[in-house]
Amino acid sequence: MREPLHIIKIGGFVIDQPERLKAWLENLALTGERIILVHGGGRAASRLSEKLEIPIQMVEGRRVTDAQTIEVVTMVYAGLINKSIVAMLNAFGRKSLGICGADLACIPVKKRSTQPLDFGFVGDILQDQFPVSVWENLMRSGYTPVVAPISADFSGMLLNINADTMAHAIASGLSKLYETHLWFAFEKSGVLLQPDQNDSVIPEIRKKDFEHMKSEGTIHGGMLPKLQNAFQALDHGVVSVHIGTPEDLLSCISGVEKLHTAVLI
Amino acid sequence: MREPLHIIKIGGFVIDQPERLKAWLENLALTGERIILVHGGGRAASRLSEKLEIPIQMVEGRRVTDAQTIEVVTMVYAGLINKSIVAMLNAFGRKSLGICGADLACIPVKKRSTQPLDFGFVGDILQDQFPVSVWENLMRSGYTPVVAPISADFSGMLLNINADTMAHAIASGLSKLYETHLWFAFEKSGVLLQPDQNDSVIPEIRKKDFEHMKSEGTIHGGMLPKLQNAFQALDHGVVSVHIGTPEDLLSCISGVEKLHTAVLI
Repeated sequence: MREPLHIIKIGGFVIDQPERLKAWLENLALTGERIILVHGGGRAASRLSEKLEIPIQMVEGRRVTDAQTIEVVTMVYAGLINKSIVAMLNAFGRKSLGICGADLACIPVKKRSTQPLDFGFVGDILQDQFPVSVWENLMRSGYTPVVAPISADFSGMLLNINADTMAHAIASGLSKLYETHLWFAFEKSGVLLQPDQNDSVIPEIRKKDFEHMKSEGTIHGGMLPKLQNAFQALDHGVVSVHIGTPEDLLSCISGVEKLHTAVLI
Repeated sequence: MREPLHIIKIGGFVIDQPERLKAWLENLALTGERIILVHGGGRAASRLSEKLEIPIQMVEGRRVTDAQTIEVVTMVYAGLINKSIVAMLNAFGRKSLGICGADLACIPVKKRSTQPLDFGFVGDILQDQFPVSVWENLMRSGYTPVVAPISADFSGMLLNINADTMAHAIASGLSKLYETHLWFAFEKSGVLLQPDQNDSVIPEIRKKDFEHMKSEGTIHGGMLPKLQNAFQALDHGVVSVHIGTPEDLLSCISGVEKLHTAVLI
């Protein structure tokens, strides 16, 4: 029987609230579960770019990453945010290791094609080359990996990676070894029926419901790619995908059920 | 019999020469030896501080690290420089893992006393708490650790650490398990009899010679603390300490003798 492994992705909105992040990490350190934490940090990266007067260019929520910007995101994601989280987790007694995809070449990527749009130093994950044994060794050592969304191609070129996609790639890649669960923490309590009403959370979405809701227009906008991502993960062997606030999702992982959206096959 | 382990410290002068660094890392990747690489990066940190208009304050070559500066050095050392080196080493086929002392709490430190001078967020290493088993596990996994001179105290506070001292602490801490050799790479070919003559390298210094040369004034200035550091490492069980250029030292590690200064008991 495969043992459970939880891959949690947290975004910039909670990283930007130091006290909330600290309290959350303390609770994470207390859970006995096997966890891999993937973080973003786009807001902090944008602030540093602004201070350095490096132009910020976003296309459909994705950062166009020129030569100066790859240095900024590597510094902010793999440096400051990654090590701040790791230092807190270790202080709370959880043996955590901060890495990015370049470390041990643990997330193989290639530079994205410049067609139809040149995103610059942005990478796409080579899922079929995912090095399961590298991750297996980290998990068997009892580490809690904290993963920054940066990697490098086979020539050693650093590339910016979407953090949601990275979390999905890790959960999918490890689904042969572990019963993997993917947790997308964001600012809302789940997928909402009414975007402005936090109490309209849809508790469970299955693929057939999704197709129906999509055609009826119940789910639209930015939530569409997130859910498509979720169903892709399920197709790749991930057992469940959950969307909600960091606090509620952590409660669920610890066995205390809280309202959120569970995405199921 | 203990197996050899080489701890190499490289400074900012070679990190600032991308082509030279790349060629050197390619050669490092080719050696079959067990290596831990510790890097600095002070020059790049100072450039970022300048761009961000954060005042730089150095006292006897050591950086006074205020709240803004600890963010700068964490970004530059643990982020950009660390991941650039790791990406290149992995591209050259060497399974390398970028860490700082906060990862796995592998370098225990405490914030330096504010007396007689307040250095701010600077840490001193707690050598008697060095976690040998954490490092043993990294080495047994076949990794080449690339270590940034940042760590965190038991409360999770990030602290700036002197890279020379960190290299010495790792070499000393692992001397019970391995036959450790410490290599300080810098811009000159070794300890020079005449500071301006690169061909006046002293090939070998023993403690009794050192005391004599010190009293005669042959060795002075910045070389004094470096050598005191070296003798301290030898007192802690390190087998040999070497001072020279990165290229010459790497040749020595690979078994091709080159002129440099060997510091011996």
